[in-house]
Parts: sequence; structure tokens; C-alpha cells
Amino acid sequence: MPSEQPAEQPAETADHGLGIETVAAVVGDRWSMLIVRNVFRGIRRFDALHDDLGVSRPILAGRLKRLVEAGILERRRYQDNPPRDDYVLTPAGLELSPALVALIRWGDRWFGEGERTAVLVHADCGVEFEQGFWCNTCKTTLGPSDIRSRT
Amino acid sequence: MPSEQPAEQPAETADHGLGIETVAAVVGDRWSMLIVRNVFRGIRRFDALHDDLGVSRPILAGRLKRLVEAGILERRRYQDNPPRDDYVLTPAGLELSPALVALIRWGDRWFGEGERTAVLVHADCGVEFEQGFWCNTCKTTLGPSDIRSRT
Repeated sequence: MPSEQPAEQPAETADHGLGIETVAAVVGDRWSMLIVRNVFRGIRRFDALHDDLGVSRPILAGRLKRLVEAGILERRRYQDNPPRDDYVLTPAGLELSPALVALIRWGDRWFGEGERTAVLVHADCGVEFEQGFWCNTCKTTLGPSDIRSRT
Repeated sequence: MPSEQPAEQPAETADHGLGIETVAAVVGDRWSMLIVRNVFRGIRRFDALHDDLGVSRPILAGRLKRLVEAGILERRRYQDNPPRDDYVLTPAGLELSPALVALIRWGDRWFGEGERTAVLVHADCGVEFEQGFWCNTCKTTLGPSDIRSRT
């Protein structure tokens, strides 16, 4: 390894296939990420999303349509008279939480300028929880350089 | 809770602050995500990235510049005569791996159509590792509905 290398690089060389390309097409977009984060926060109505994000209504409508078509959000009728819908997470959308938590913590750590924007805690005890890689065979935690891809 | 709700929604209501907005501005872009994924895979040279991604050279150059300015990638001279550079992950870039692993697995699970594109394994033993939330106080794993935000 050359000495000017800034940090140990992953040894990953095998093909990761198309998974991340599909993901990038669906959530690899600033507004889509912010919409999903807001629905996780409980901001679920079109007007509330519009007010919070400061995004134009056509862009918001387009991104919501795409997230519904991708099976990440679901439109739900919460009031019949007059009819009003909001957006809730599907099971697929709920399972985005590990990625969102990782991204939020990464942003706090590297771009937070010393100020944590929020601390994500276990609801039951109010204490910050951990997120990590774990090898159940070797009974050890892993870092990025311990990962390989098996195709 | 209304019965038409598709799955238990997170109770999250507190503000997550600006962290994810910074993150979304930096990596909330299809090409940026794919470039970072490729550098993790060991595809680090401009021409190799260009060939693999099928992205135009100006777009690729622009995204690489932004990722370098954001402190995620670093340009490295790997050959002096003729001068040739490639791109390596900074410590901040390396720490994107939990988010990338979560996104890759999420894509496989929900968009892989039964076919896993790749299995991410522990390099030492070749066995698939786990990723999860863990509360060290309650000694338990967590799901998305167990998360709160404390500001």
C-alpha cells in the first residue's frame, strides 16, 4: 500500500451487483431522503411536508408519487369528510431505518461541527443505542475493512 | 391507530435537526452514491469509474469534485510519470460503510426479486455478518419503532 494513502481502504473488489443502483434510483435524491426522514418523524401530510421542507408543491407531489410507486410510502385516508390523505411507511419503508440512522449519525459526526443535532435513543430507557456490524461466527464486531463480498 | 395502517409506524416526533439535510446535499444523489459504492469496491480511477457507471465525463468530474470538497474522497497520485491520480476514501468516507451496507441489503431484500446480488461477509471467516441496533443498557436489539430522538 502506498504511504500517502489516508486510511486503510476496504479490500472489497467483488461485484456488488445491481442492488445499490436500484436503491440509488429510488432514494438517491435529496428530496426523497428528506421526505422519508420526515415521515419517520411523524410529518405525514402533504401540507405539513411542504411547510417543513420548503420544496415546491409539484416537486413534492412528484417525489411522493415515486415513493408510493416504489412501495416505500403508502397513501392512507385519515379523514372522510372532507377526504384527506396522508403518507405512511410501508414495511419496506420502515426497514430503511438502519440506513437513515447510519446517515444521520454520520452527518452529525462529520458535518455537525461539534454540535449533535439529535441523539437517537432507545424509547424504553432513553439511552443512546449502538449500531454496528457483528459476526455471529467469530463473536466480534467488524469495521469497514473487515467486509468482503461473496457473489 | 387506524386499522388500515400498513405496519406499526415509528413514534418519532422530535426534531432530527439538520444532520440529514447536510447528508442529503452531499450523498443524496444517484451518481454520488454509485461513485462512493464503486470506490469501496476498489474502482478508483476516473476512466474505470467512467466505464463502469456509464456516466458522462463532465457529470463524473463534477460529482468527484463535490465528493472531494465534502471530505469524502481524496485525490491521490498513484503514478508520477506520466502523472496519474485516483480517488480513495477519507476516514469520513470509510465511515459511510454502515449506511452503504444497510442500503445494499435493503435493496436486495425489497427489490432483488428473490435474487441476492451479493452477500456481504466477514473477511476472516467468509460468513455473512449481521447489522443492527443494540441497547447496551437493556441488553436487547431494537427495531425502528423502538427509536426516539432526544434533542
